[in-house]
Amino acid sequence: MSDLTRLLRPASIALVGASPDATKLAGRPLAYLKRYGYQGRIHPVNPKHAAIDGVACSPSIQALPRDIDLALILLPAHGVVQALEECAQQGVATAISIAGGFAEAGAADEQHKLTAICQRTGIRLVGPNCVGLLHPAHGITATFSSELKNAMPRPGKVALFTQSGALGNSLLQSFNDLGLGLAYWVSTGNEADIGVLELVEHAISDDGVELIALYVEGLKQGHRLLDLARRARAAGKAIVVLRSGRSQLGRAAAVSHTGKLAGAWKVWCDVAAQAGILTVDNLDQLLDVATAFDLFGYPSRDGAAGLGVLTISGGLGVLISDAAADVGLELPAFTAQTQAALRSVLPPQMSVANPVDTALFTDEKGYSLCAETVLHDPAIGTLLLVLTRLAHDYTALLPWLERLSGEARAMGKRLAVSYLSSSDTLGAPERRQLVRAGALVLPTAERVVGAIGRRAMAARVLPAGESAGAAAAGGTVEDFLAQARVPLVSEGVFGDVAAACAFADTHGYPVVLKVVSPDIAHKSEAGGVALNIADAAALQAAWARMQQSVAAYAPQARITGYAVQPMLRGGFELIVGCSVDPELGRVLMVGAGGIWAEVLDDVRFLALPASPDEITRALDSLRVAPILRGARGQAPLDVSAAVAAIHRLACQFHADTGVAEVDLNPLLVRPHGQGAVALDVLVVPVSSPPKE
Amino acid sequence: MSDLTRLLRPASIALVGASPDATKLAGRPLAYLKRYGYQGRIHPVNPKHAAIDGVACSPSIQALPRDIDLALILLPAHGVVQALEECAQQGVATAISIAGGFAEAGAADEQHKLTAICQRTGIRLVGPNCVGLLHPAHGITATFSSELKNAMPRPGKVALFTQSGALGNSLLQSFNDLGLGLAYWVSTGNEADIGVLELVEHAISDDGVELIALYVEGLKQGHRLLDLARRARAAGKAIVVLRSGRSQLGRAAAVSHTGKLAGAWKVWCDVAAQAGILTVDNLDQLLDVATAFDLFGYPSRDGAAGLGVLTISGGLGVLISDAAADVGLELPAFTAQTQAALRSVLPPQMSVANPVDTALFTDEKGYSLCAETVLHDPAIGTLLLVLTRLAHDYTALLPWLERLSGEARAMGKRLAVSYLSSSDTLGAPERRQLVRAGALVLPTAERVVGAIGRRAMAARVLPAGESAGAAAAGGTVEDFLAQARVPLVSEGVFGDVAAACAFADTHGYPVVLKVVSPDIAHKSEAGGVALNIADAAALQAAWARMQQSVAAYAPQARITGYAVQPMLRGGFELIVGCSVDPELGRVLMVGAGGIWAEVLDDVRFLALPASPDEITRALDSLRVAPILRGARGQAPLDVSAAVAAIHRLACQFHADTGVAEVDLNPLLVRPHGQGAVALDVLVVPVSSPPKE
Repeated sequence: MSDLTRLLRPASIALVGASPDATKLAGRPLAYLKRYGYQGRIHPVNPKHAAIDGVACSPSIQALPRDIDLALILLPAHGVVQALEECAQQGVATAISIAGGFAEAGAADEQHKLTAICQRTGIRLVGPNCVGLLHPAHGITATFSSELKNAMPRPGKVALFTQSGALGNSLLQSFNDLGLGLAYWVSTGNEADIGVLELVEHAISDDGVELIALYVEGLKQGHRLLDLARRARAAGKAIVVLRSGRSQLGRAAAVSHTGKLAGAWKVWCDVAAQAGILTVDNLDQLLDVATAFDLFGYPSRDGAAGLGVLTISGGLGVLISDAAADVGLELPAFTAQTQAALRSVLPPQMSVANPVDTALFTDEKGYSLCAETVLHDPAIGTLLLVLTRLAHDYTALLPWLERLSGEARAMGKRLAVSYLSSSDTLGAPERRQLVRAGALVLPTAERVVGAIGRRAMAARVLPAGESAGAAAAGGTVEDFLAQARVPLVSEGVFGDVAAACAFADTHGYPVVLKVVSPDIAHKSEAGGVALNIADAAALQAAWARMQQSVAAYAPQARITGYAVQPMLRGGFELIVGCSVDPELGRVLMVGAGGIWAEVLDDVRFLALPASPDEITRALDSLRVAPILRGARGQAPLDVSAAVAAIHRLACQFHADTGVAEVDLNPLLVRPHGQGAVALDVLVVPVSSPPKE
Repeated sequence: MSDLTRLLRPASIALVGASPDATKLAGRPLAYLKRYGYQGRIHPVNPKHAAIDGVACSPSIQALPRDIDLALILLPAHGVVQALEECAQQGVATAISIAGGFAEAGAADEQHKLTAICQRTGIRLVGPNCVGLLHPAHGITATFSSELKNAMPRPGKVALFTQSGALGNSLLQSFNDLGLGLAYWVSTGNEADIGVLELVEHAISDDGVELIALYVEGLKQGHRLLDLARRARAAGKAIVVLRSGRSQLGRAAAVSHTGKLAGAWKVWCDVAAQAGILTVDNLDQLLDVATAFDLFGYPSRDGAAGLGVLTISGGLGVLISDAAADVGLELPAFTAQTQAALRSVLPPQMSVANPVDTALFTDEKGYSLCAETVLHDPAIGTLLLVLTRLAHDYTALLPWLERLSGEARAMGKRLAVSYLSSSDTLGAPERRQLVRAGALVLPTAERVVGAIGRRAMAARVLPAGESAGAAAAGGTVEDFLAQARVPLVSEGVFGDVAAACAFADTHGYPVVLKVVSPDIAHKSEAGGVALNIADAAALQAAWARMQQSVAAYAPQARITGYAVQPMLRGGFELIVGCSVDPELGRVLMVGAGGIWAEVLDDVRFLALPASPDEITRALDSLRVAPILRGARGQAPLDVSAAVAAIHRLACQFHADTGVAEVDLNPLLVRPHGQGAVALDVLVVPVSSPPKE
């Protein structure tokens, strides 16, 4: 593990190309460092000035002391390569380049030069094409972020890493507006060297961080995500990701079914769920989750988790119940004691169930009694009050709300506040006052429910995946199949129909006939599969028909022969595949197979290594799972044998870098005790795709 | 069709129980009528006062003139029945009762008395347990709505009907805050007489209405929804619905598969889609759609529909593309001319594709040039500008934005504005100023995209369903099947196995054996289905096994006999069902049948009557549709025969009120030209459910 402490908490910062004009991008960082009280050494590098704003300048990078932790390179693109090289030679530990004009503008070669310098010299780089970094607790402002002209977010426990500088900046605006605490923010830009995942790794080992919030457009070394997410959970930290680009991530060009089904967005969603990562759909949701963690911390597994709601609209109560069900949040029933206390305040026609609708039937005293009653109910961990000026005097309510939030925290509980209408919110100062008292304040009840529900998900028990067993790297396709011990149906491959009939006689009818060709990956489409052949005459007829249809479908295809298999009855056909996701690396796919593979798209992806438990959970999450477990009075199938075979295959694929794609389609899962057997196998070695 | 004009635009209003204390609920309506300039006659009814605030009182309802259009009954529950009766006797046309304490509080009998008075006398009633109604264009404030203490929404083209009074009130707050125009609002409460759908019907025929917005908790006479939605579309009006309760609407207790699959929420979603109704998930989405209609009107089918986006963050551009794809909104490519004009402003490393990221590279002049360039692109109908104070001076921008919106409208185009951060919005007065200039202003770009996308959906061509053919109402189950001309597989039912074997010999093996019992609805679970029986010996063995398993499963079941059918091969099994939804009335269900019926839950519901086109579209929207149309080189199936059979069944079910549920499971769709045949049929007459 690399240590990014000198990057994130530098004792000395060089500002290469610092400008004395604080209105220019290159002038801002120095102004910010002074304004926000950075206590380390600052070294502007500028040959034209002896000092800027009272800080002595170095005339060149070579003139810098040799122990600089961080160099912020403020030069335009054409000067960056040389500056980074000089920094490396001068012993600078880490650098940031803000300049655009690299890979994002088509100049990948220039960017490769930066990567090469990092690899050769050991200097570490953030950017290029980024906005820099911010560490509020230490006044570290190695950034030209425009928002720092307004204010610095207060120090906190949320680490924020964004691949977009402008969106990061907009999130800083929100941190300031919401009074949300920030551990540090890094804008990673083009990630020529350091990417978000390396920063995640650092944050996992930082005691000051409780939530790691990411805005991601694409992951480099994405295969590390699963392991990092597990380490984060083990360390009691949550990761929340806003990922953009679902409308752009298309299906991969691939030979196997698995590859074709591997629309990268689906792989991303499945693997994020496997890893226990929280995912959100937009910036506000990201901020809502961050706010819930900032105020309430990492969720404890002790104590009441339920939500109690006080509203003045029964209709909104139903909408809140709907939203809570969506995120798996419980609205527990109140105890008899709670109900009796509410009944003493509310008129007889009003229900005293959760959510409670007080309508307009309570005065201030009655309302506060209802709120305190619900807060004290043992099943309630968070009390949500839905306010409206139509019924409440916000100014009069505010001191009481602050007290109530303090009372809640003293009990290990929480107060949340939203409004009947998002046009009827508290003013910003009053809101921040209430937030300082520890209350979660969001414009709508749905957002409160989403934030609390997602925070609670972080603590949900997710059995950890074991690491996979070792497997030797294979050589040929045959080696691969042998080492993975794929259970294959007995099969003979023949060039003439008489030999095929003899094989069928020996093994027994009915049989299946399939074409075997290195140039035909999808036999069914080619008319190259005949099922349920009852006798020799039928086999001869099927053979003749298949020769014709295959010739029509793929006239150029080389035909190895025709395979004869016993026709196995009973059970259910799965598809099992392995492929390499461009971002997440080696992945396993399991799903409904045979004709259903393409029709239902009922599949789950797992990043590798995946444990037998994870494979079992993936199978159980399929729509067709009831069939595996014995639907409609059918016998249950041999799922454990299927899991064992899939796990062996996945381990071998994880180890064997000579194989690019594998399909078992179908893997027939037979009745309990009879195992699972692959009826067809496709193995695609690296860089030798079959043609059709 | 009833005419609700005297309710919604009364020339005279009686206030029964009006209070001289304007701070009390019963005192507010008079104060509001005077404040907001109602021009009709006002008649407070109060024996204790000669006049209230200068308006002469009637001492009793009997003392009112005989031509009152609307009586607002402000009395508590115990006085309402008598007051409504007196109003009816006095010739009052319509009434509103605000009192709670009826069906919602367990007093259904009292509420029935109100319904009975309406039915007997012809007086029409809104409520009880409601907040009243509001018609801003005419100063009609027959309501105690607290929001009217603040302001009256401006007159507009959005009709709002809400079953929750408090949520309606909160929407009024938002209408005021957003400067949104309101045609009228009715809070319908318990709907003892007039429900939301009757109000929808009135609004469809009102030229002043373009959008009908509903908050609904449950529909009475929901079977009218489909017809009303079609009439609305024909009249160039859209309907948008926020429906609560998806977490509470469970599965119906039913005998047939159809009934069991009919979770009312799924039925609701399918029928709303069938009708072309816009659905939203929360109050803000409802307001966003209303705002888009208020500003931009009903979407024209002419003119450019595409969205052009100017942002300062490439990351947000990707998020906007994602959101647009979700609602089917196009971000068209720019013309070469547009791209060249953008290129002249932006530096070479920046892309000039839609969405355009200007980053921080433009000054005010360059930015306005980019905006005007995109606005003039022929493919662009709406220009979205994403603002941020980090780059823009909002105060300086405002006059230009107003001009730009005017320029857009002059071209038949539109301007929309949102922000990089929802913490960085325009202030409320500036926002309203921009809205008055015709721009759509929402806090996030996702909300702009959602509002514009949903508005565009309203104009999407949806082939109208034909009305169904007439069908005679049947008597017995046999009559029903005969009149629906259900194509049934040939079948014999036998009490002894020898007769069964004789039938099988005649019709040919393989055959299927099934138990026949009025007490067993689900044969598979009972072990009462054996497939693919090859010969007489196998039939005898299956017969014996089935007797045992059926006896074990349902020892008390009366066994009519055992049915023998030829085993048909090839094709795909659908499930087709008819049932009565408690809200939406007679519905048809089509989906994947046989074992897949329960596993996949791949079904679509249609409200009846449904046309053959609608049935075809429903089948084509199933996940298994590729199999019907010929997946993986298989022959296409006889879908048109299946549609014809399903349509006949649906017509008959629509007409025959003696039948409560029907299942064809499976309806085997055979290869093209070979028709469709039901292999099993269950018909449940009204109120005689079979037991198990």
